[in-house]
Amino acid sequence: MYWEREFETLERNKLRSLQLERLKRTVKQAIQSPFYKELYQRKGISADRLRHVEAIRELPFTTKQDLREHFPYGFLSLPKRDIIRLHSSSGTTGNPTVIFHNRHDISSWANLMARSLYCAGVRDTDVFQNICGYGLFTGGLGFQYGIERLGCLSIPAGAGNSLRQIKLMQDYGTTAIHAIPSYLGRLYEVFQAEGLDPRKDTDLRLFVIGAEPHTEEQRQRIEDMFGVKAYNSFGLSEMNGPGVAFECTEQAGLHIWEDAFLIEIIDPETLEPVPDGEFGELVMTTLDREAMPLIRYRTRDITRIIPGVCACGRTHARLDRITGRSDDMFIVKGCNVFPMQIEGVLLKVPEVGSDYLITLERINGVDEMIVEVEVKKDWFNGDIARLDRLSKFITHQIRDEVLTKPIVRLVEPGSIPKSAGKAVRVLDKRVFDSVKL
Amino acid sequence: MYWEREFETLERNKLRSLQLERLKRTVKQAIQSPFYKELYQRKGISADRLRHVEAIRELPFTTKQDLREHFPYGFLSLPKRDIIRLHSSSGTTGNPTVIFHNRHDISSWANLMARSLYCAGVRDTDVFQNICGYGLFTGGLGFQYGIERLGCLSIPAGAGNSLRQIKLMQDYGTTAIHAIPSYLGRLYEVFQAEGLDPRKDTDLRLFVIGAEPHTEEQRQRIEDMFGVKAYNSFGLSEMNGPGVAFECTEQAGLHIWEDAFLIEIIDPETLEPVPDGEFGELVMTTLDREAMPLIRYRTRDITRIIPGVCACGRTHARLDRITGRSDDMFIVKGCNVFPMQIEGVLLKVPEVGSDYLITLERINGVDEMIVEVEVKKDWFNGDIARLDRLSKFITHQIRDEVLTKPIVRLVEPGSIPKSAGKAVRVLDKRVFDSVKL
Repeated sequence: MYWEREFETLERNKLRSLQLERLKRTVKQAIQSPFYKELYQRKGISADRLRHVEAIRELPFTTKQDLREHFPYGFLSLPKRDIIRLHSSSGTTGNPTVIFHNRHDISSWANLMARSLYCAGVRDTDVFQNICGYGLFTGGLGFQYGIERLGCLSIPAGAGNSLRQIKLMQDYGTTAIHAIPSYLGRLYEVFQAEGLDPRKDTDLRLFVIGAEPHTEEQRQRIEDMFGVKAYNSFGLSEMNGPGVAFECTEQAGLHIWEDAFLIEIIDPETLEPVPDGEFGELVMTTLDREAMPLIRYRTRDITRIIPGVCACGRTHARLDRITGRSDDMFIVKGCNVFPMQIEGVLLKVPEVGSDYLITLERINGVDEMIVEVEVKKDWFNGDIARLDRLSKFITHQIRDEVLTKPIVRLVEPGSIPKSAGKAVRVLDKRVFDSVKL
Repeated sequence: MYWEREFETLERNKLRSLQLERLKRTVKQAIQSPFYKELYQRKGISADRLRHVEAIRELPFTTKQDLREHFPYGFLSLPKRDIIRLHSSSGTTGNPTVIFHNRHDISSWANLMARSLYCAGVRDTDVFQNICGYGLFTGGLGFQYGIERLGCLSIPAGAGNSLRQIKLMQDYGTTAIHAIPSYLGRLYEVFQAEGLDPRKDTDLRLFVIGAEPHTEEQRQRIEDMFGVKAYNSFGLSEMNGPGVAFECTEQAGLHIWEDAFLIEIIDPETLEPVPDGEFGELVMTTLDREAMPLIRYRTRDITRIIPGVCACGRTHARLDRITGRSDDMFIVKGCNVFPMQIEGVLLKVPEVGSDYLITLERINGVDEMIVEVEVKKDWFNGDIARLDRLSKFITHQIRDEVLTKPIVRLVEPGSIPKSAGKAVRVLDKRVFDSVKL
């Protein structure tokens, strides 16, 4: 039932010991990189100081901004000649983020992927079609190496061309697929257009879905359309890519591999740990990466650890759905939006105050961005038309800036709960399984 | 200077012994597949009969048609659950060809790729950008695994997006590139448009080119534009993909790895071996593949073994440029053409005889298809206009059929040399390094 019983079912106290051992090794390794060397020397940090895992809280956080500012080699902890692969974010402007791997890292990642797939019920008898872009996107090679490590018959199908995807499924009796959830809806339409029913005309039994926000409803719909089980996958490129956390066949949360990643859930404002089971920002430390260890990396993903023990017997903690992000960026209707862009617009409107809150909600299946703006008290004097004009003006200004139209609500000063705080400008009420990969 | 000195410089007689041992193993393995089991039982063939490598001539050939007719599992020599990857040809109509690999095969292929790259001068200190489609195309994963095995820093760039390719080269100091030759011309234009000179503004030092016909002139031009050495790669998907034969730094022919492939050069008509050093069809037998051994596979590529010993010290034979193919299909101006299509057109024209010859030539840098057609003797009575009309008619008919316009030449009966024979309808005078991958 397990890919690596000894690791997956390790007693929690032994898991903690393993984590401490690996954390020390990781800190020693990280100090070989220019970034951590400078930082830790300045702060007098050494691996010897770590007497228990919780001592990690004394170490500083690492952010995406750090990665960008020390691009490309500031985090490299090994000589360049030891590196065998890099994955970097796309785009041609500005510094991308890049992750380097040595041979050990690639092998460790492949093993985590194999463990993840096995955990979701994939076996070496499966024919696994990886419908996803290859190349620098981590979903392609990440899954490929994992499928092969597990011993499935892998079909490196790549993305797109639905007719060909269907032909591959039928030619080779594909039983398992990895794809982004939105593509599977499109694929089903092509099945229908061809007069085919995937439940009868294929051997499909299992999907792995991830790399894109989706709801439990979407998962259910996919499962119903294809007559399969669909398991959620979570990962992020800074932590290799896929293979970070995966649902087991219980479908009751995503096991996050704690022998490879040390996780903390923090309050993104106070930066203190939140009580067990409560939502906060996921902070991760690599425990088994040599080329580019990252320590206390702020993922910006908001989630929580599901309390209790999983029926599958794995002792590794389960992540709940990612409910949003603690940082700037969010995606709505395909547009990347930074709250600073919204703030920039509001600052130019003298009538509004400095408090605003962006709420993202799925309304009738469509994502909406609701912008609540506090307006000076004297505007609420009964002149509805005047308020309406201001609301429309702000709506247009924001749409011009971020390319998607918000729903603007003008509210009285003090309406926006201060608990949301200064740092949290965005509430993402859409229920996501995974917001990025 | 060698990736595997013991194999690459093995004395010829020891190489022959190794080949015999591996050939016997391969035949035993092949008999596990439905296709070879039936064929060899019927013909009373067993591995024990092979007392020397030349005895392979008693075994029947395998053709692409065999692969298609026994699609998908007729050549599979292992249980399906032992297979970890397939690569198949594209397209949605008709039976594709498919090659299956088990773990050993993938590892062996990766090693051959590493050996090939090392042979061309690539080292673990290189930053290797693989500009080529991933997924089912063998150039992507084939090179990826080889680059990593060799220990370069691999950049799995994928195909296209020249600006991004250039940014990757500059961000990470790319020193080596794999790409198809025609893309490199395009890439150079983008460098120029950006006001960049690849000789000054990059660290490029080495290219690997293949998967597409190209001339020695094209290679020279690429080397001059980028200020690099460009090495030819040869492979075909039936023999894994890339990693079959590769130029060493002598650039004096492509070493074909004879510990992994047993090669014969045959007369495509008589099917008998041609004398040493003469041109003929390359026939290949896998010597180190478990999942899907192929025995005496007719590649249809016309080449020869370059006589003599290479200065590099490797004892493995060197393939000359592929000068054409012995089978139906050829590519001209991007169109796949089967001679049967031309023949079909001619058969409908009562005025022409049954003899024709297609010659492919590069004229002023452009590939041209010249179709010589024998016309009944009484047409050559001085009525030039009548001949011209017939020529134009045939030209149009062929263009409608194969989507590219030929140059049609009407000739008197007996003009077409019979030495070209019935089987050879196409003379490819373009000089290719590699006609397919």
